[in-house]
Amino acid sequence: MRLPAPGASFLAEIREQPHALRRLLEHRGEYEEVAGEALARRPHLVRLVGHGSSDNAASYGVYAFGIQAGWTALRDSISLSVYYGADVDLERAIVVGLSQSGRTPDVVAYVARAREHGAFTIAVTNEPGSELAAVADVTLPLAAGSENAVAATKTYMNQIAALLLLAGAVSGEATAIATGIERAADLMEGALPRIEHAVDAVATAFAYVGRMYVIGRGIEFATAREIALKLTETCRVAAEPLTSTDLAHGPIAALDPLFPVWTIASRDEALPTAVEAARRVRATGATLVASGNAASEIEGAAYSLPVPEPPLPLLAPLLSVVPGQLFAGALAHARGLDSDHPEGLTKVTLAQ
Amino acid sequence: MRLPAPGASFLAEIREQPHALRRLLEHRGEYEEVAGEALARRPHLVRLVGHGSSDNAASYGVYAFGIQAGWTALRDSISLSVYYGADVDLERAIVVGLSQSGRTPDVVAYVARAREHGAFTIAVTNEPGSELAAVADVTLPLAAGSENAVAATKTYMNQIAALLLLAGAVSGEATAIATGIERAADLMEGALPRIEHAVDAVATAFAYVGRMYVIGRGIEFATAREIALKLTETCRVAAEPLTSTDLAHGPIAALDPLFPVWTIASRDEALPTAVEAARRVRATGATLVASGNAASEIEGAAYSLPVPEPPLPLLAPLLSVVPGQLFAGALAHARGLDSDHPEGLTKVTLAQ
Repeated sequence: MRLPAPGASFLAEIREQPHALRRLLEHRGEYEEVAGEALARRPHLVRLVGHGSSDNAASYGVYAFGIQAGWTALRDSISLSVYYGADVDLERAIVVGLSQSGRTPDVVAYVARAREHGAFTIAVTNEPGSELAAVADVTLPLAAGSENAVAATKTYMNQIAALLLLAGAVSGEATAIATGIERAADLMEGALPRIEHAVDAVATAFAYVGRMYVIGRGIEFATAREIALKLTETCRVAAEPLTSTDLAHGPIAALDPLFPVWTIASRDEALPTAVEAARRVRATGATLVASGNAASEIEGAAYSLPVPEPPLPLLAPLLSVVPGQLFAGALAHARGLDSDHPEGLTKVTLAQ
Repeated sequence: MRLPAPGASFLAEIREQPHALRRLLEHRGEYEEVAGEALARRPHLVRLVGHGSSDNAASYGVYAFGIQAGWTALRDSISLSVYYGADVDLERAIVVGLSQSGRTPDVVAYVARAREHGAFTIAVTNEPGSELAAVADVTLPLAAGSENAVAATKTYMNQIAALLLLAGAVSGEATAIATGIERAADLMEGALPRIEHAVDAVATAFAYVGRMYVIGRGIEFATAREIALKLTETCRVAAEPLTSTDLAHGPIAALDPLFPVWTIASRDEALPTAVEAARRVRATGATLVASGNAASEIEGAAYSLPVPEPPLPLLAPLLSVVPGQLFAGALAHARGLDSDHPEGLTKVTLAQ
């Protein structure tokens, strides 16, 4: 029996993402039903909770609910309620608990407590038989299929699509969103081989990099966070996500020619801020990587990893994350690391 | 005429913080008056906006309002409203715009827009004659005195105290909070010389460090963010702030004996999470620095930088940040950098 190659699951799961998205869409009816229940509460706040990649997906949820539905959504502090017991008003709140495994202890504790305090609680998980599902009012499946690599890829992909589908359903535009996700899946499938090829040269050049910034703003801040997390956990790079404005407010001072910066540029209202941030980065002599569907707008990038432009700007993050995932896999390989089994991590994190 | 020594302003402003706090307290009446106006709106949400250190202070504000007043406060997305024009409900919202200079362009734009949409807008600034003050309904002074070093210290200090004072006033406990801040200022004054001495040995040991994590959870996450920012801007260290749980969900994989971790441990409900995170860090062989009033609870720390315990747990961040500020100054000195004038930064950041 041959052992699988290091990183084989991680790569296979990245490649499988278009299919994972299509599987999610089979559950569209459940998302619309839950959206109906949420609407009936006339909510004034959506509280999103998760850790790691799930928290990155929550960053996207803030924009999906804000732009698509005009609802205020926040990445809520788990410690504020679970540890400090803050007595905030949870009536008319919608809580969305995000956990691939459904076993993250303090996400389960948060959701259970929120439900007791009158919130309408939704578990979004890849494991509908999990503890998280058991404590929530309703459960929405991620349907990403079993994920074996420790670092999440397709479950993150389906989390952001799930949040957008839910936001689309509450705004009465489930059909447009579902069609858009389907189209994004097709575009991704078509682009994957080209991106997979393109990241190799970048990985070779970056084999010895110890630190990096990943810049994204607005709807792409989630992508910056997720790419930085993949690089940190699979490649042991200290990769920090920053908004383009965060960068200017301090971290720019740390840059030098050996401190590369990855910029995500998508064609939307926040694009000028990405272009300006890249200009500031160039002035420090740092090597610039540009990705996203507007990568060509970033002048002076040493490497460009463009992705297709989806039918709706809000769908861009589904495609933008892919070059970062593939780059993480290629860089781990170049560094002799196994992206399926990062040092010190397990698939289910039971940390408080 | 002698030129000032590099970093002289930065150090002088750190030392001046107890006085800055006392100056803020002279404005207690204004804080109580604005709290009364805020209460009259029966708000269901406090939206905090700022960049850089001001955004770090906002992280503290989430806990100050949540724990002290039972109000939900969030670090709002500026791009969501300013760039994407998301049409979220701002009636009955309290907006707190944080900017030392009062000139941060998109914070000004956010506050102006929020006021037009019906929010009650409060400018908290060190410059009551600024644009931010002009566009807000009311202005609360930071009264930190003129800050000359580019990296903020005493204005951050007074921002967190200001947010706590406001939260104290809306919860009818302005006196207890004001007395507590006064006591914290006294404790800080007494401890400053000892901490200033203690950081020198750590700075010498860390002279060549390129990357670092700074760990804090709950009310101390703001402190972790602020210490990481000081290290990044004044020492050119890639220092990333993480909650203790973030650490376990990925970044732990990047640690090795040359990747030190700074842990903030304060005696409160989140302390067990800091202790657990430190245990995980130790297992990787990374060098551990422990600070905070419960630094002694962190086993195996190579360096310990304890601070006094204030009369109320919520006041801890006023003291916890000081060792990090002083360490940043000492490390910049050890590296031959001028902490008053970091590379590529100016006192007022006009980035979008």
